[in-house]
Amino acid sequence: MARDSSATKARLLDAAFAEFAAYGIAGARVDRIAEAAGANKRLIYVYFGNKDQLFDAVMERALALGVEAVPFEAENLPGYAGRIFDHLVAHPDLMRLITWKHLERPGATDAEAQSYRAKTQAVAVAQRDGRIDPEYDPADVLILTLALAQAWFTIAGGMSPTGTGTPWPPQQLARHRAAVVDAVRRITAPRGDSAVGRSASSQA
Amino acid sequence: MARDSSATKARLLDAAFAEFAAYGIAGARVDRIAEAAGANKRLIYVYFGNKDQLFDAVMERALALGVEAVPFEAENLPGYAGRIFDHLVAHPDLMRLITWKHLERPGATDAEAQSYRAKTQAVAVAQRDGRIDPEYDPADVLILTLALAQAWFTIAGGMSPTGTGTPWPPQQLARHRAAVVDAVRRITAPRGDSAVGRSASSQA
Repeated sequence: MARDSSATKARLLDAAFAEFAAYGIAGARVDRIAEAAGANKRLIYVYFGNKDQLFDAVMERALALGVEAVPFEAENLPGYAGRIFDHLVAHPDLMRLITWKHLERPGATDAEAQSYRAKTQAVAVAQRDGRIDPEYDPADVLILTLALAQAWFTIAGGMSPTGTGTPWPPQQLARHRAAVVDAVRRITAPRGDSAVGRSASSQA
Repeated sequence: MARDSSATKARLLDAAFAEFAAYGIAGARVDRIAEAAGANKRLIYVYFGNKDQLFDAVMERALALGVEAVPFEAENLPGYAGRIFDHLVAHPDLMRLITWKHLERPGATDAEAQSYRAKTQAVAVAQRDGRIDPEYDPADVLILTLALAQAWFTIAGGMSPTGTGTPWPPQQLARHRAAVVDAVRRITAPRGDSAVGRSASSQA
């Protein structure tokens, strides 16, 4: 019985992820989610509450999976960016979900603001210890790194897998990833580090 | 008479810009646009067609203004990125408009695909002439440059003016801009260029 309900919950969350990624929060329809999950619509209200709360649950699970798959590493921002890239390739709808949230729920949640502060503090420490170039403010280091990691999924529109629905050929994928990792290395590596500007991206 | 109609058209396009930026294509309401413009709703259909066509007209005008304000310069990608940054600061809702388009109309229009090809070709020429580091593929140079230029408006969510609705203090704005310009310099400047990794961003 407990197992059944957790299986149903998981199916509802999967279906809700797909629905929100496709249509956003306002555009999502709870009946379509219930139908796709093969569950009674009433169960959504029982388990999660209203549509907004269902979105919160979907987002929370997606972010928890993201943090687990790609822990933050101030010590190795190029590698971190590469692993974000991999995670977005493996979860092609994730960037859409996050983007709807930016548009329909602008502003950071408390958890997001806290995570942002923790990351910038870790960057500041790494800068003080000489492991990240201290030229930029820690917040700029963080935001520019994330922008590079997500570049092909946010900017490229019709040129990327997110835009076209067609996966990249492996060689092209590897080329984009290597450029992202190397670019983060160039903007974060301390001066005098011989890896700056060299193509050592395959190690990250 | 002609002047009246072009003034009304302009008011409708301004109101439509604000409506689409706030609610997206599916969420926008034609009656709210007419009301905000102080015009008869029927005129929208007369001048522009249906809601989708009105969105096309808004987008076309926004992109034309963007190209005029920030012409592409393969010769000077750091400066180009800085001017994109300025344009996004000056038009705080523009990134939202573009982002709704990515989500609700994924895939490139013919005009977008053509502009993308022209830009990557210009980057390839600049790489061949030794004015841009040839390490990355031209498409990666372009997409990573755009990602850095837009980083504070796409990624930062609640931490940026787009997310919070609160403009940055001038000093913080200047700091973010300088980091963006310098980061683009680091990933595009040819090897041996003494400006790489130096803070020369105020000149761009």
